[in-house]
Amino acid sequence: MFPCPPRFMWHLMPRYALKIEYHGAPFAGWQRQADQSTVQGAIEAALDRIEPGPHTIAAAGRTDAGVHALAQVAHCDMTKDWDPFRLSEALNYHLKPYPVAILSCARVAEDWHARFSALDRRYFFRLLTRRAPATHAAGLVWQVAHRLNVEAMREGAAHLLGKHDFTTFRSSICQAASPVKTLDTLEIDAVDTQGGPEIHFHLRARSFLHNQVRSFVGSLERVGSGAWAPEDIRTALEARNRAACGPVCPPHGLYLAGVTYPDDTFA
Amino acid sequence: MFPCPPRFMWHLMPRYALKIEYHGAPFAGWQRQADQSTVQGAIEAALDRIEPGPHTIAAAGRTDAGVHALAQVAHCDMTKDWDPFRLSEALNYHLKPYPVAILSCARVAEDWHARFSALDRRYFFRLLTRRAPATHAAGLVWQVAHRLNVEAMREGAAHLLGKHDFTTFRSSICQAASPVKTLDTLEIDAVDTQGGPEIHFHLRARSFLHNQVRSFVGSLERVGSGAWAPEDIRTALEARNRAACGPVCPPHGLYLAGVTYPDDTFA
Repeated sequence: MFPCPPRFMWHLMPRYALKIEYHGAPFAGWQRQADQSTVQGAIEAALDRIEPGPHTIAAAGRTDAGVHALAQVAHCDMTKDWDPFRLSEALNYHLKPYPVAILSCARVAEDWHARFSALDRRYFFRLLTRRAPATHAAGLVWQVAHRLNVEAMREGAAHLLGKHDFTTFRSSICQAASPVKTLDTLEIDAVDTQGGPEIHFHLRARSFLHNQVRSFVGSLERVGSGAWAPEDIRTALEARNRAACGPVCPPHGLYLAGVTYPDDTFA
Repeated sequence: MFPCPPRFMWHLMPRYALKIEYHGAPFAGWQRQADQSTVQGAIEAALDRIEPGPHTIAAAGRTDAGVHALAQVAHCDMTKDWDPFRLSEALNYHLKPYPVAILSCARVAEDWHARFSALDRRYFFRLLTRRAPATHAAGLVWQVAHRLNVEAMREGAAHLLGKHDFTTFRSSICQAASPVKTLDTLEIDAVDTQGGPEIHFHLRARSFLHNQVRSFVGSLERVGSGAWAPEDIRTALEARNRAACGPVCPPHGLYLAGVTYPDDTFA
């Protein structure tokens, strides 16, 4: 028999939101897996060393293997009433072996949920366009050897904005109930970095389909290189057919850049 | 007996300038060493695979273990008349196992010398000021956990500009004939990066003493954190005593950022 009524337990478990940065390279993605190293698994193991577990955390976005985060958001329930800063310090201590850092921690309401309370997700993508292999940026960018036409890519991207059936741009194993999503932002900037010319993509939507950003970027690179016309993006979108998508680009230029909540959670 | 007069040989050896980017972490510095991996050694070994060697290259600056380069410059003498782009491509192919990239290659005059023709060297230093451990920037910045007073650091830095006896700020094993150097630029910027607040140092001088930039940055960090007053930099400088220097900061935030030559070598 469970000794306490669930509602009483609920009140005893203070909930904390965590803002998390990580390097995706050593991980088989966010989501816990029995036999592989994952970001969720690393953070839950750190929580288990702080308080008796097992702990289960929920995140705003389940990033794929190799994908980075600048500001993933997750929540955890603790037994003890932790000072949020002390909790982030204790977690960072136990996370030392991993490229995972708790940037911020905040006490949130019992019904606050990292995934279901989120108003939108933001993704960022770095595409390095130079001939010589990347050194400092290796593993942090997708690199192509040729220059790209940014204006053509912007024209192509304009077709993706708004509410569409994005079947073309989602993985065949995507588990979302519907392929219809609303893309609020897809900005493309040419940036001269110290490591050479980069194209930066900034995307925002309430939610994304599996592989949606990498499908967008891979298809838009085809436009930038001249292999596709900007209008070919619209044709691909309207085909509502995965086979019409351009090549899905690799994960290591992709960053979960932020999550918006109704309250300013980490203020 | 040597079959050809040296001057004839000289004319047969076309000289090439190389602009080189590298990640310092896996190397015991620039300079070739018999028993350790160095950047010079890696590039000379790549040259030996392209043309019979041994090749010996000369660089504008001999960076220490762990120090990076955005644009080191070296020159090499080849037997064959190479198209510069083909030479850079062949080198990058053989350098694949290392985080070293030839960014640019140019044919130069026989008497052009990467070290002796240089008019000035530029260094760049990244100092990350945040509590949570760096993930993407790990190994690419020096990190301190506290915020720094940039205005105070600039005040302190102003004492270092111009021609001085920099005995305080050079390593005790520095081999330069004189400790008197002229520092032309020491700019300090506060920059909000995606990985958090950073302080960027930009330095320029005809030449630098051994550990001079790291001695500057380590001492200026003391000013930024409030442990030193800005005037303590002048006191340290005027002491002309290595013991008066602040802590020498670690190498992995330091980048050789560029070298200036009378001609626009890589135009």
